[in-house]
Amino acid sequence: MTVSAKPDGKTKLLDAALTVIRTKGYSAATVDDICRAAGLSKGSFFHYFPDKEALAVAAAEYFSAGAAALFDAAPYRDEPDPRDRVLRYVDLRAALLQGNFADFTCLLGTMVGETYATHPLIRDACDTHIRLHADDVAQDLEAAKRAYAPSAEWTAESMALFTQAVIQGAFILAKAHGDPAVAADCIAHLHRYLETQLPIST
Amino acid sequence: MTVSAKPDGKTKLLDAALTVIRTKGYSAATVDDICRAAGLSKGSFFHYFPDKEALAVAAAEYFSAGAAALFDAAPYRDEPDPRDRVLRYVDLRAALLQGNFADFTCLLGTMVGETYATHPLIRDACDTHIRLHADDVAQDLEAAKRAYAPSAEWTAESMALFTQAVIQGAFILAKAHGDPAVAADCIAHLHRYLETQLPIST
Repeated sequence: MTVSAKPDGKTKLLDAALTVIRTKGYSAATVDDICRAAGLSKGSFFHYFPDKEALAVAAAEYFSAGAAALFDAAPYRDEPDPRDRVLRYVDLRAALLQGNFADFTCLLGTMVGETYATHPLIRDACDTHIRLHADDVAQDLEAAKRAYAPSAEWTAESMALFTQAVIQGAFILAKAHGDPAVAADCIAHLHRYLETQLPIST
Repeated sequence: MTVSAKPDGKTKLLDAALTVIRTKGYSAATVDDICRAAGLSKGSFFHYFPDKEALAVAAAEYFSAGAAALFDAAPYRDEPDPRDRVLRYVDLRAALLQGNFADFTCLLGTMVGETYATHPLIRDACDTHIRLHADDVAQDLEAAKRAYAPSAEWTAESMALFTQAVIQGAFILAKAHGDPAVAADCIAHLHRYLETQLPIST
């Protein structure tokens, strides 16, 4: 088995899809755009993917796997207290608002906003991967709720989905204003809400 | 001056743009799609608008004017207490999650998600109109903060933008899951957050 430092063609196309789709949206991104960004021919594209929709579905999974690896390896995972893990996760989401919008915004939220009615395969892939990530957040929230707010009215699942809604909406406002600062401010509100809902008894 | 019950051609095109763009996104919506939905010819379209981008900018303003009229006329405006106005506004946002996604989702958030990098005129129109609406919400928040949380760390402007982020993100999650219930649940979290941040002293 040989080990190569260079990504293969499929990975190049998936990386290109992440950049191109997060820059101009799914519908405006053409197969030509993605091939150009990947430095590959259209022949290569169709060797790996039957069409742009299939690439988008694969890109949703690829994006999610990358995000999962990032969060799994992040220092906040080692916090012994689940409340700390929840709050440090939110802080990490704010810290990740660096670079170009195409680097830090969410492929899933971008694609589903414009394809939910017309591309059910893409919609389902986005829903699946948003919820898989929310499920990870919900595990810490479940433990934190048990320890800090056992009688709270909300469920961990509901709160985890709320964290994702805030982050998706924060990206929308940041794109509109051309500035990630508004997204960081929204995530600070999310942090404050979680602190109030997971109170430290005095 | 004659009064006509029928919308003029421009209004028909704007109404059609609201439906078509909120269904399939800005990039996938063609001038043909919008003309078909309006029941008008392409000649009519180009009589009113030089191109699809100009229609989108006009549609952002038209959408916002419609939303402003709806909120200005809503019963919550008559609540004497600004805290009640804020909370009833949020409840109204949840109550509006009825019908098709193209009826209740936000034209501005949909368009800016896919055009922010490629269509600065559309991005600026979306930003302007999201913030004009947030400014209205901020007025009630400013009065409510003064009465209930004068020393809170957040500003009314920041909180108002947060309300809009939650609503935009709630639409994304609802589109992904094919169900507005998750959006209503996110808006319930927003309601709870505002209650904690505008505490009624006991």
